[in-house]
Amino acid sequence: MTGSTEHTPGTSGPRLGIWIAGAGGDIATTTIVGARAIAQGLADDLGLVTSLPPFAALGLRSLSTLHFGGVDVGYTSLPQTAEALYRRSRTVSRELLDALRPDLDTIETDILRDRALGWTATSDGTPLADTLAHLRGALRDFRERHGLERVVVVNLISAGPTAAADPAQQSADGLAELVATDRRELVTPSMAFAMAALAEGCPFVNFTPNPSTGYDGVRELADRYRVPIAGDDGKTGETLVKTALAPMFLARNLRVLSWEGVNLLGNADGRALDHPQNRSAKIHNKEHVLERILGYAPHAGVDINYVPSLGDWKTAWDLIHFQGFLGVPMTMQFTWQGCDSILAAPLVLDLARFADLAARHGEYGPMSHLAAFFKNPLGCDDLALPSQFERLLDYARAHTVG
Amino acid sequence: MTGSTEHTPGTSGPRLGIWIAGAGGDIATTTIVGARAIAQGLADDLGLVTSLPPFAALGLRSLSTLHFGGVDVGYTSLPQTAEALYRRSRTVSRELLDALRPDLDTIETDILRDRALGWTATSDGTPLADTLAHLRGALRDFRERHGLERVVVVNLISAGPTAAADPAQQSADGLAELVATDRRELVTPSMAFAMAALAEGCPFVNFTPNPSTGYDGVRELADRYRVPIAGDDGKTGETLVKTALAPMFLARNLRVLSWEGVNLLGNADGRALDHPQNRSAKIHNKEHVLERILGYAPHAGVDINYVPSLGDWKTAWDLIHFQGFLGVPMTMQFTWQGCDSILAAPLVLDLARFADLAARHGEYGPMSHLAAFFKNPLGCDDLALPSQFERLLDYARAHTVG
Amino acid sequence: MTGSTEHTPGTSGPRLGIWIAGAGGDIATTTIVGARAIAQGLADDLGLVTSLPPFAALGLRSLSTLHFGGVDVGYTSLPQTAEALYRRSRTVSRELLDALRPDLDTIETDILRDRALGWTATSDGTPLADTLAHLRGALRDFRERHGLERVVVVNLISAGPTAAADPAQQSADGLAELVATDRRELVTPSMAFAMAALAEGCPFVNFTPNPSTGYDGVRELADRYRVPIAGDDGKTGETLVKTALAPMFLARNLRVLSWEGVNLLGNADGRALDHPQNRSAKIHNKEHVLERILGYAPHAGVDINYVPSLGDWKTAWDLIHFQGFLGVPMTMQFTWQGCDSILAAPLVLDLARFADLAARHGEYGPMSHLAAFFKNPLGCDDLALPSQFERLLDYARAHTVG
Amino acid sequence: MTGSTEHTPGTSGPRLGIWIAGAGGDIATTTIVGARAIAQGLADDLGLVTSLPPFAALGLRSLSTLHFGGVDVGYTSLPQTAEALYRRSRTVSRELLDALRPDLDTIETDILRDRALGWTATSDGTPLADTLAHLRGALRDFRERHGLERVVVVNLISAGPTAAADPAQQSADGLAELVATDRRELVTPSMAFAMAALAEGCPFVNFTPNPSTGYDGVRELADRYRVPIAGDDGKTGETLVKTALAPMFLARNLRVLSWEGVNLLGNADGRALDHPQNRSAKIHNKEHVLERILGYAPHAGVDINYVPSLGDWKTAWDLIHFQGFLGVPMTMQFTWQGCDSILAAPLVLDLARFADLAARHGEYGPMSHLAAFFKNPLGCDDLALPSQFERLLDYARAHTVG
Ligand SMILES: NC(=O)c1ccc[n+]([C@@H]2O[C@H](COP(=O)([O-])OP(=O)(O)OC[C@H]3O[C@@H](n4cnc5c(N)ncnc54)[C@H](O)[C@@H]3O)[C@@H](O)[C@H]2O)c1
Ligand SMILES: NC(=O)c1ccc[n+]([C@@H]2O[C@H](COP(=O)([O-])OP(=O)(O)OC[C@H]3O[C@@H](n4cnc5c(N)ncnc54)[C@H](O)[C@@H]3O)[C@@H](O)[C@H]2O)c1
Ligand SMILES: NC(=O)c1ccc[n+]([C@@H]2O[C@H](COP(=O)([O-])OP(=O)(O)OC[C@H]3O[C@@H](n4cnc5c(N)ncnc54)[C@H](O)[C@@H]3O)[C@@H](O)[C@H]2O)c1
Ligand SMILES: NC(=O)c1ccc[n+]([C@@H]2O[C@H](COP(=O)([O-])OP(=O)(O)OC[C@H]3O[C@@H](n4cnc5c(N)ncnc54)[C@H](O)[C@@H]3O)[C@@H](O)[C@H]2O)c1
Ligand code: NA
Ligand code: NA
Repeated sequence: MTGSTEHTPGTSGPRLGIWIAGAGGDIATTTIVGARAIAQGLADDLGLVTSLPPFAALGLRSLSTLHFGGVDVGYTSLPQTAEALYRRSRTVSRELLDALRPDLDTIETDILRDRALGWTATSDGTPLADTLAHLRGALRDFRERHGLERVVVVNLISAGPTAAADPAQQSADGLAELVATDRRELVTPSMAFAMAALAEGCPFVNFTPNPSTGYDGVRELADRYRVPIAGDDGKTGETLVKTALAPMFLARNLRVLSWEGVNLLGNADGRALDHPQNRSAKIHNKEHVLERILGYAPHAGVDINYVPSLGDWKTAWDLIHFQGFLGVPMTMQFTWQGCDSILAAPLVLDLARFADLAARHGEYGPMSHLAAFFKNPLGCDDLALPSQFERLLDYARAHTVG
Repeated sequence: MTGSTEHTPGTSGPRLGIWIAGAGGDIATTTIVGARAIAQGLADDLGLVTSLPPFAALGLRSLSTLHFGGVDVGYTSLPQTAEALYRRSRTVSRELLDALRPDLDTIETDILRDRALGWTATSDGTPLADTLAHLRGALRDFRERHGLERVVVVNLISAGPTAAADPAQQSADGLAELVATDRRELVTPSMAFAMAALAEGCPFVNFTPNPSTGYDGVRELADRYRVPIAGDDGKTGETLVKTALAPMFLARNLRVLSWEGVNLLGNADGRALDHPQNRSAKIHNKEHVLERILGYAPHAGVDINYVPSLGDWKTAWDLIHFQGFLGVPMTMQFTWQGCDSILAAPLVLDLARFADLAARHGEYGPMSHLAAFFKNPLGCDDLALPSQFERLLDYARAHTVG
Repeated sequence: MTGSTEHTPGTSGPRLGIWIAGAGGDIATTTIVGARAIAQGLADDLGLVTSLPPFAALGLRSLSTLHFGGVDVGYTSLPQTAEALYRRSRTVSRELLDALRPDLDTIETDILRDRALGWTATSDGTPLADTLAHLRGALRDFRERHGLERVVVVNLISAGPTAAADPAQQSADGLAELVATDRRELVTPSMAFAMAALAEGCPFVNFTPNPSTGYDGVRELADRYRVPIAGDDGKTGETLVKTALAPMFLARNLRVLSWEGVNLLGNADGRALDHPQNRSAKIHNKEHVLERILGYAPHAGVDINYVPSLGDWKTAWDLIHFQGFLGVPMTMQFTWQGCDSILAAPLVLDLARFADLAARHGEYGPMSHLAAFFKNPLGCDDLALPSQFERLLDYARAHTVG
Repeated sequence: MTGSTEHTPGTSGPRLGIWIAGAGGDIATTTIVGARAIAQGLADDLGLVTSLPPFAALGLRSLSTLHFGGVDVGYTSLPQTAEALYRRSRTVSRELLDALRPDLDTIETDILRDRALGWTATSDGTPLADTLAHLRGALRDFRERHGLERVVVVNLISAGPTAAADPAQQSADGLAELVATDRRELVTPSMAFAMAALAEGCPFVNFTPNPSTGYDGVRELADRYRVPIAGDDGKTGETLVKTALAPMFLARNLRVLSWEGVNLLGNADGRALDHPQNRSAKIHNKEHVLERILGYAPHAGVDINYVPSLGDWKTAWDLIHFQGFLGVPMTMQFTWQGCDSILAAPLVLDLARFADLAARHGEYGPMSHLAAFFKNPLGCDDLALPSQFERLLDYARAHTVG
């Protein structure tokens, strides 16, 4: 992060836009329902990192000043997806849905439904240049219509295939050239959302495993437009535990012989990840965590299996086979049974608040102090949760008002 | 820790004595077998914290310069208890035992067998003053016979009942008075071992849950004789994991609703802990860990059940019921299946080396930098493993040669 | 079971009363809500043993002909307890509750609220004779008011203390004498409910662990009034799995060294069982299961811990340490996470339907063919689930129409 | 099984040969070491089904009359593979190995080492006809050299690819034709071992998942030579538990929504199964178990992952997601941590004894009463363990002497 304090951060005051790519998804819906529930005093702020004491005096934007919008390739309305959270995942109550119905109807009007944004390497459709112009216009329109001080763009679209690598992706001009020549197989939707956001001065948070902030060309754009960026791949369940536990084995000089993990989930994200080309980035992120924390590469197997009946309730079982004094082998196993969207949504709100804070302080480029939120954190080699969290506390201490 | 650097630490050179109270126990036997195996190149130093890179340049005493001795109320010889490790726990091989037999026979000669040291509040037997004098004599004799530069005393006796509280325990003179008037119900064996060690200038490490270093009177002795002390209750299995995981829930603002743990073990320690009066200290240590890390007191249940067939193979199952965003309840459970003595023994060697290092640097009193080794660490309120380990790394950095 | 076919079983036709002692409890409420939901086509009959193919041609009473009533010492209305199932246990939906509200209001009128029925060995209050007369009157009134062909009484009151043993309990006349002389410390509420039911010709099912059908005096009453009885202690979770798995170890000649089980629950039943005197019968039932199936007594530990946050969601973890060929020790562990009332309620409906069927066939005394439903089955030494279920299938084959 | 009692079974008397294909494998070695240890009173008969009371009066061949031999493509001697069981799996002790060394050296002389027996669809090498003749000669020689009354052939070779299907495999003459024309891609080693055994009148037990007894041609040979056959794929761990638990869900009308299983193992069998073409038969057997027991096909996922560090210690984790009353979803999970060879070896001895018994009773063709021993039992559609074991008890009752 390079930059200096621009002006005093405001707690209330002008509103912050949160524009979500994939606004019709499980996480997006849970994020919006949760934020509005908290803003209306219908739920407390449990699960929000930014509600923890060390961040109290940062002047973070209050949830009641957040204004939601975004885009999705799907046409199921926000109230309908919220209904599914109640029926299938049993995570929100009927009463909460009914109370928030007016809010959800209003926010639905700020969500563009556009099937064309779901292009793949092979599909035809709108030229990239038009798509970029269309997205940038939508962002400007969203900001002006609601008089928003700033808009943070959060990428929550489905896990998709990674574009083939090409030198042009490594520079801002190269990317512009790819857009101009409509090279759709080299510019994924996630990359386009990043480019549109940065060009409009919007901080960009990539919660998906889809490479975007990782391209040097995108980094160059962030510097050019002096915009903060963060990513990739939100850390919510199994990997969160893995990066909390692996340092323990290191601190006791217990050698991890093998760490096998099987992830079972049955929501849309699970369905997407059931296709090999969509899961390669996620598997890559998951498999390299151990090597980078432990400093050696134990046998590390990762399975991601789609189990429809489990829906949003991700169940992960890990078996850690480790060796101690006199070479004696021992085991630890854990089962994590958490609701993926409920774990992800508060982190989306945290990341948007921190991105807004960075922008207010005139900071731009990779927000490496947010490493604790990601499986594959930008600008930070340290994947161990404890030291990642220390890094966030240091940032908070450096930015605490007075 | 108060004190200053006394003289340059020696890596080889004169020998360090490790005098173990409870030298006939599972941990003691595993410690001795392991140290000799490593010293003779028959095993690598896996499991030893002091073998980790950050401690490489501290000039710690090498394992080959360690000379073992101690005392036990039991009369089963060291080679016989080692044989049981092979037969029952399957942790050491026949070949290793046969190779180390000469060593074990020699070390057995330095282990006093003295049933009288196992007094309880009600048992009669040798007056305390004689016992103290006897122990101090044994320590001096052990040191002089082998020309040892220093002797570290490690308390590994069985978990026993805690003495009734009495003001006299809160001062060195008060303790001396209790010894003089043979008030055995107010001075437990663990307290006596501490007093004898300190009086002989021996650093004292309490690996047991039995209160000893916790008494102000003992602290006063440590200051009076300028001797380092550490304790209480080694952190090897379930509590190690608990203090690595609890900070994760705190960092994600996930409220722990209940944390239930059941510990199953079938070794002598397990048999001792099966008696309510022997387990109160251990249960206390285990139950207060969460409250002090989380800052609030979730429902925390701890069961310790004696299951003979499991022997030394401690199995602990924990269920963590926690609440996230929008109050949604979720669970994590883990099962730890580790061999208690194999986890404890390397820590005993680490603690002895660090105690020796502190003494060489002229430091004395509670070694709070060793917090990561204990369930109930002396002079350190922080029970979270990550920050405890940082504290140890800071100490190492401050003491690294050159 | 002794008896002969009395008359042809009717599937529809006159209504069957189900009169529940403890009608305000979690299981009772779930039973009533479930039966009414199925009767109105708002839920399918999953979980009902009697819905399985082998029982299709028995002419069992259809759920729509069931008429509920009963008694409870608590004054929280049926609709209010149903509301708690929605809010706390998330087991029924808002829509289902609203649809069934009229039914629940009507059924509430048939539930007597009478604090006096909760006597203990020491409490004073209504003389036993009056209580018995009161209960018998209530049963007659319930039956006549709704023109019911038969009333089955199901005991679902809280787990309570077991009465001191007394010879008078071993004969019908002895029991009558204890009632006449108001010996409340020798006649528990569960015994009184059994005596009142039998005297009124009502089949009696004891789903609680509280001894009642086990007394010879009660057996004598069942023979005297030619009434079927069944019990004790419904088999829903951990014990269900234990009696399915233990036969597997026996069939492979794998010796169970120890079988440790910890049960965590946080509902009212859990709170009741947290008092030692209330849990002795339940612990006894749980601990003797293995010995009777395996034919030898492995180390069997059972913990029942009250964990308020878990509510009705019983979590049980079992560790089975077993020994195989060449004496090699191995382990199996399982975690059962089920909603206690949702597992119990369908069994209550099954037991009522089978009790009605037995009565229709002129059978009376212990219904040992229902062994598979109980931890401590009446008149059946076989606790293994597979053979218990075979016994039920044999009974069905012998009673299948045509 | 068709046949009649041929002559009275002998308990001691002339010796029974057990000729193992894959005699150098983990299971074979454990079987031989175990049988000799029991025969010499160095181990008890735990783990042997045939040692259970119901089989005491069948006149089964005593272990001391068993004479081992066989063949393997590997050249590591029996004593060397036994040494690995001590070093790697810690299942046998040094003392037992040393005591049995003479036995193992002798048995090694009866194990042919012949790399050529490891042909695949594509490898060249000895013509099938010669291989068949070579195997038949070896069987005759083994039997005559040791004056054995009978030789049972047990197939324990590695899991291998399944031959392409061909009509010729469906008749004895067809098979003979394939051998004559050396159609190696249509006749796997497992099929050849079956054909050689049957032609020499040797009962054949297929413990591997490799199809052989399943071909009609092989069945025809069994009838032609009036020889008992049994198989396929020994049931030792995860599937054993699955076939004990699935009937429980059926008996309680609890609908299994999904049953996910992950199997981790690191022995040679695990390495073989890591190759897709070798594991198809095993995965097929595992995945169809539930559908055939439950009568409907829940989502059933099976992973078999090779984890070298675990060696012979198979660890299987299953998650059962099931639905109960009112559609409420619940879960059960279990972890099985067993030593594969220690679980398999006693079953090999049981199967050989039962095959010998069948032959003595003049019975031949598929031994469906042995269904409980196999994942994919011959001539028996019932995969539920309880009813499979009843079937074995019925057979025993029908064959009990006197
Ligand atoms: N839930 C977690 O714990 C977790 C953790 C880390 C990362 N993630 C990632 O977050 C993302 C969202 O997860 P989710 O559970 O909400 O998934 P989801 O499938 O419920 O939502 C994704 C939404 O994106 C929309 N979408 C897909 N492609 C699009 C495009 N090109 N343009 C606009 N919208 C598009 C889909 O229609 C859908 O509504 C996924 O990439 C997932 O892998 C989730
Ligand atoms: N193993 C672990 O993971 C672990 C962890 C933390 C604490 N501890 C504690 O460490 C201690 C040792 O554990 P262990 O497994 O070796 O137990 P152990 O029972 O095998 O050994 C204890 C030894 O102390 C001896 N002893 C008892 N009272 C004595 C006395 N008054 N004087 C001299 N000797 C005496 C006993 O005879 C025995 O040989 C116990 O207090 C245990 O609670 C163990
Ligand atoms: N839920 C299970 O899986 C399960 C399994 C086996 C046995 N049981 C037993 O079933 C019984 C009911 O379980 P629950 O979860 O519904 O318990 P609960 O506490 O929710 O309900 C018990 C009801 O009985 C009432 N009650 C207590 N004493 C009474 C008396 N003397 N007369 C009339 N009413 C009285 C209470 O007020 C309460 O409403 C308990 O005994 C429990 O141990 C439950
Ligand atoms: N261990 C279990 O629980 C279990 C359960 C069911 C089935 N099985 C099956 O039993 C078989 C043996 O298992 P294992 O653990 O002993 O495996 P293993 O790999 O240890 O032994 C197999 C042996 O077969 C030999 N072999 C391979 N191909 C051969 C051929 N064509 N002719 C002769 N020898 C050959 C190998 O050299 C090896 O020594 C495997 O098919 C396995 O899938 C094992
Ligand atoms: Na307990
Ligand atoms: Na897989």
